[in-house]
Amino acid sequence: MHGIYERKDMKRVITLLTDFGTQDGYVGTMKGVIHSITPRASVVDLSHEVSPHDILEAAYILYSAYRYFPAGTVHLIVVDPGVGSSRRIVGMRTADYIFVAPDNGVLTFIIQRADVKGIFEITNEKYFLKPISDTFHGRDIFAPVAAHLSKGVALAKLGGRIGGIKKLKIAKPRVTQEGFCGEVIHIDRFGNLITNIGRRLLEEFKVQISKFKVKVGGEVIFGISKSYTDVETGKFLAIFGSSGFLEISVSQGNASKVLGVERGQEVEVMEIRIEYQ
Amino acid sequence: MHGIYERKDMKRVITLLTDFGTQDGYVGTMKGVIHSITPRASVVDLSHEVSPHDILEAAYILYSAYRYFPAGTVHLIVVDPGVGSSRRIVGMRTADYIFVAPDNGVLTFIIQRADVKGIFEITNEKYFLKPISDTFHGRDIFAPVAAHLSKGVALAKLGGRIGGIKKLKIAKPRVTQEGFCGEVIHIDRFGNLITNIGRRLLEEFKVQISKFKVKVGGEVIFGISKSYTDVETGKFLAIFGSSGFLEISVSQGNASKVLGVERGQEVEVMEIRIEYQ
Amino acid sequence: MHGIYERKDMKRVITLLTDFGTQDGYVGTMKGVIHSITPRASVVDLSHEVSPHDILEAAYILYSAYRYFPAGTVHLIVVDPGVGSSRRIVGMRTADYIFVAPDNGVLTFIIQRADVKGIFEITNEKYFLKPISDTFHGRDIFAPVAAHLSKGVALAKLGGRIGGIKKLKIAKPRVTQEGFCGEVIHIDRFGNLITNIGRRLLEEFKVQISKFKVKVGGEVIFGISKSYTDVETGKFLAIFGSSGFLEISVSQGNASKVLGVERGQEVEVMEIRIEYQ
Repeated sequence: MHGIYERKDMKRVITLLTDFGTQDGYVGTMKGVIHSITPRASVVDLSHEVSPHDILEAAYILYSAYRYFPAGTVHLIVVDPGVGSSRRIVGMRTADYIFVAPDNGVLTFIIQRADVKGIFEITNEKYFLKPISDTFHGRDIFAPVAAHLSKGVALAKLGGRIGGIKKLKIAKPRVTQEGFCGEVIHIDRFGNLITNIGRRLLEEFKVQISKFKVKVGGEVIFGISKSYTDVETGKFLAIFGSSGFLEISVSQGNASKVLGVERGQEVEVMEIRIEYQ
Repeated sequence: MHGIYERKDMKRVITLLTDFGTQDGYVGTMKGVIHSITPRASVVDLSHEVSPHDILEAAYILYSAYRYFPAGTVHLIVVDPGVGSSRRIVGMRTADYIFVAPDNGVLTFIIQRADVKGIFEITNEKYFLKPISDTFHGRDIFAPVAAHLSKGVALAKLGGRIGGIKKLKIAKPRVTQEGFCGEVIHIDRFGNLITNIGRRLLEEFKVQISKFKVKVGGEVIFGISKSYTDVETGKFLAIFGSSGFLEISVSQGNASKVLGVERGQEVEVMEIRIEYQ
Repeated sequence: MHGIYERKDMKRVITLLTDFGTQDGYVGTMKGVIHSITPRASVVDLSHEVSPHDILEAAYILYSAYRYFPAGTVHLIVVDPGVGSSRRIVGMRTADYIFVAPDNGVLTFIIQRADVKGIFEITNEKYFLKPISDTFHGRDIFAPVAAHLSKGVALAKLGGRIGGIKKLKIAKPRVTQEGFCGEVIHIDRFGNLITNIGRRLLEEFKVQISKFKVKVGGEVIFGISKSYTDVETGKFLAIFGSSGFLEISVSQGNASKVLGVERGQEVEVMEIRIEYQ
């Protein structure tokens, strides 16, 4: 098993990340398939509330969560607007995990960060449910494949090795005259605006964190906080979030609603300069 | 026990299907009761977002999911507007599964399809929590009963055998002069309109699938697709869904919203005829 | 293990109660951390739909659910508007359970009801993930601490014993000239209005249940029902709910929407008196 399952007593976790919602029983059905194949697996929901067909949103959620799971975890992603078309299904092995997903860019952040050991196109129908429906590959292909991989079937048995997969174009912050300019890449349940501006980028500027100001949607925020309670209730703050990116928040409030901004919104970070006239 | 649990190593799955939502802790409480009685069970959520008191919606979700679970699974359904009244609680055994539900029609599709081995009215308070509340039989009756059944207690110990249970009147497609006419029986998270028109019905007409047209809410769709991407983004399509029923969708969109239709909406399927003048 | 884990075969359950929602992967990430530390635990969601930062709502949900779990369960609550500030994190042991929560009042009802064996401030970074983020202590502190406790690490190893914790001021019903007056403390998914008026309070009046009337938001309800179906569809009723509190409901409807009331709404209960002129 290529080193992933060396410890016999290891918990076999399978995570699920879909845009299926939880109302229709689609996710439950996938779990039924998984339990039918591998009674030892623990299935963990990452999210099923990805906005329908929103590959970037799924890519971000996966990126922020995947590395907190035990080695040997199979991460299954079914955000798949191309279901039934000729889009490929891929299995990707890194040092610690296996990822199974449609080849639509949802693994973009993982490829950038993780040590990829091999990518395979999943084609071996022996590991699929039959008949394969036109609309629910989550049930008929993805779930049984993830279950077999979790049981220890080698990725190479599921299809041929391929050279690469589709990547999303992810906006990167650009340097400006006064600092740099990034954008909002995710808005979470609390209305926090998560940007693509990483902590390292700010550190490169060798400027104290208290010497930055952040501009977003007409608001200017001075300094970067350590806690949501550093400012009064209802006030804006900038803070480094749990994935290491700069976030814009409202203390005990909802920054997204207050500012009326959406994903893609520009966020500027610049050094505070004292100007003498 | 009756043959369901012959394999000793079998995974004991209990599925939950309710209209409780997930905000109040009701479902978590039921799981607490189950884990207290049977530590070996894996509990899988089918859905808790059934519209409050919507028995037909629950019946459809159960039907589309139940047979993907391992033999021995106990399917527990608590969509129960009559809680506290004299409505019966029933346990039904099929070749592979046990179903526990209020006797309100939620098992209608299962009875039509599965090989029913016995139906029992659940009355034995020995297997209930005490005191029994007036409003939360999910916690006090359904969850402990499902847990005991999953552990191997025979249905016959829980109450007496009964002859039959309540069935919903499910609309069936009717033949028209030009083809047939069915209706929308479920609308899923993606806005797909799932009809009561099964694949077999169309096959009986011995007409090529490309020779059908579908009329719904003022739209006419020609032919039946194999993938949501067979048509351009935003266009309507008809496709056989994962439960074998004809569905109306919008590629990468929401057919329910675009058409403004609801469950019960008429859907006509007719042969495309070329007319010579 | 202070008596909690005496039975070796005991199921180790960890419950999660947060205001994180399920869309962002925050809860899944916490489960990844837990499974990495303790493969034997079963994780059960109590609710993740607590209104953001609503400590009282979380306190009520916890109270209504906690005692239905097996002895040895670790109840983890992360409704934590003060994350990153100097608010304490506490671990509290009762006869049957361990609670881990921010010290913000969310354990108020538990302290009132359960037999508290010890309260500790959790400070031992040995049991935390590193680095500790500023915004996601659920992942970096709460989840690993709960996992270690579930594995059998003693609370005393996690920090020093403390004398007490923060309590919410919970409104209590007050006696009036005609009966008493309480308020709505929770509104559930069905729109049921759950009050702070317990069954025992009414029993003290030694008046038959049919002899009470309930006034709320301009409506008057006569008598207390045993089932939602005791009245016609669409009619109001008062009933003792599953936590032993008086609830106001609409049969097959939504009392909260119909009355337009919110949490905090006054509810009066008074004896029905026949007046002779």
